[in-house]
Amino acid sequence: MAEERVDFVEVGPRDGFQNWPQPVTTEVKVDLIRRALQAGVPRVEATSMVHPRWVPQMADAEAVLAAVGAANMDRIRVLVPNLRGFERALTAGAGNVLVNIGVTEGFNQHNLNRTIAETLADIADVLAAARPAGVKVDASISVSWGCPYDGPVAPERVIELGARLLQMGCHELSFGDTIGVATPTGVIELCTRAVERFANVPLFMHFHDTRGMALANALVALECGVRGFEGSVGGIGGCPFAPNSTGNVCSEDLLALVHDLGYSTGVDVNALAEAAQATSEALGAELPGRLYRAGPAPWLRAAAGATSA
Amino acid sequence: MAEERVDFVEVGPRDGFQNWPQPVTTEVKVDLIRRALQAGVPRVEATSMVHPRWVPQMADAEAVLAAVGAANMDRIRVLVPNLRGFERALTAGAGNVLVNIGVTEGFNQHNLNRTIAETLADIADVLAAARPAGVKVDASISVSWGCPYDGPVAPERVIELGARLLQMGCHELSFGDTIGVATPTGVIELCTRAVERFANVPLFMHFHDTRGMALANALVALECGVRGFEGSVGGIGGCPFAPNSTGNVCSEDLLALVHDLGYSTGVDVNALAEAAQATSEALGAELPGRLYRAGPAPWLRAAAGATSA
Repeated sequence: MAEERVDFVEVGPRDGFQNWPQPVTTEVKVDLIRRALQAGVPRVEATSMVHPRWVPQMADAEAVLAAVGAANMDRIRVLVPNLRGFERALTAGAGNVLVNIGVTEGFNQHNLNRTIAETLADIADVLAAARPAGVKVDASISVSWGCPYDGPVAPERVIELGARLLQMGCHELSFGDTIGVATPTGVIELCTRAVERFANVPLFMHFHDTRGMALANALVALECGVRGFEGSVGGIGGCPFAPNSTGNVCSEDLLALVHDLGYSTGVDVNALAEAAQATSEALGAELPGRLYRAGPAPWLRAAAGATSA
Repeated sequence: MAEERVDFVEVGPRDGFQNWPQPVTTEVKVDLIRRALQAGVPRVEATSMVHPRWVPQMADAEAVLAAVGAANMDRIRVLVPNLRGFERALTAGAGNVLVNIGVTEGFNQHNLNRTIAETLADIADVLAAARPAGVKVDASISVSWGCPYDGPVAPERVIELGARLLQMGCHELSFGDTIGVATPTGVIELCTRAVERFANVPLFMHFHDTRGMALANALVALECGVRGFEGSVGGIGGCPFAPNSTGNVCSEDLLALVHDLGYSTGVDVNALAEAAQATSEALGAELPGRLYRAGPAPWLRAAAGATSA
């Protein structure tokens, strides 16, 4: 019997580095992207075409994409906040972009300085420009389980916003637990509805491990029928200098769980753990990921090679 | 409908501090034990009656128990490696002890300097002395999913050893993932068999979060019908100074999951998070636990009180 496939997007180069407290060189970013692609990660969210005034860490977006190279561009996704960002991504050769919206007015206003209606209009502009250009547009919904400003979020609101985004022309939906408040019960509530409502749409869960629940959440999402995840190599984004940091779920820890449960992803987890180790060394900081620090089980170390032990 | 009960044993004062690389004062240990009891933890594994030559950190075992006080002794468990340790525990007023054995010859030899047969004989001695004294004896089985010396462990071997220990007179079984190699698939394999074979025996899972799988493992154990866990406040035991440290699952993170899934434990998770914070400050080190660092979800902070935010 063929193993069932689970899709995966590595978002560390964007969501991880975006929040890193020290400057990260283009070289370090490109090395991580190349390693992730080499490890078999289907897609990498490489950078964000946001104005450098808002996110200085992403000021080298064009340089990152140029270094990754045109030959790899079919496995690269770029976050674009608006039409201007989309045009930059298009010029840089991107064929897949991600738009983002918060499900609460409070978060959308604080994060994007826009009402939800204004962000939907921005997304419509991106979609209108992407269609003739043949660019695929995915959508992510922030604070899908709870918002620091507006509190808990009812799953129905996320579903309605997702339906709206698909109706507008988005191809995929990613549900973000932006502040790491999702628990298995809430994940089951949202995923059950999403899998039923969006039967033929690629659905992704974007968990943060802020309160340690990310892998348990991923497990119940799989049980609900979700077949897509996002993660960050080494859990980059969980900043070691910020005590209340909200780190992305660690890609290799998550994929080890996915594989253990019998799904295939095409990703070499040990190669991803090596990427985490290399990135940790380049940043001069320990990352939150567990597997890269502990290494595989002792009896698997020889098979994995000495470098990942 | 009444919530189903899940039992819990806090093992941080023993399994956590035992491996702490700096000396821990009796005062810090007793403060953690008192806080855990105050938070509603049903039982605390307070110390180990091991020879101080082997585990210097437990040299103050009698002083710890004296400070905890006779009035709390019905909620205290003490690890005893042999008859001599049992006699010390009895003298100190313990009514519940834990014996330990490795399921592999390699681990038992390295950890206890005994063959499995010799350790079973030691356990028989403890049981013989405990019976007339009215002391309850629980048993823990180390490396239940894999051993650093002998490799992966078949669940049947753990079940057979567990059956033997129960037959000898032990009251409860705890299955230890001592080196943190258990994955959900392996947990399901062992728990399914254990729940079926030991229908009326209190079963506990003792997970380590070395590779990030502990909460996912706990979730599937619950799904298999397991209703007992052990954990360590703040995840103490995952030493911040040792890169490949094998930390106990964090009690409050684990219990937040258990509560989210609809089970009751009687434990105030926020009070336990405060205990983690206090212990972290006393030790002068950040602990691996997530919830105590992140605090509850923002909209729960007011309810939880400012101290746990």
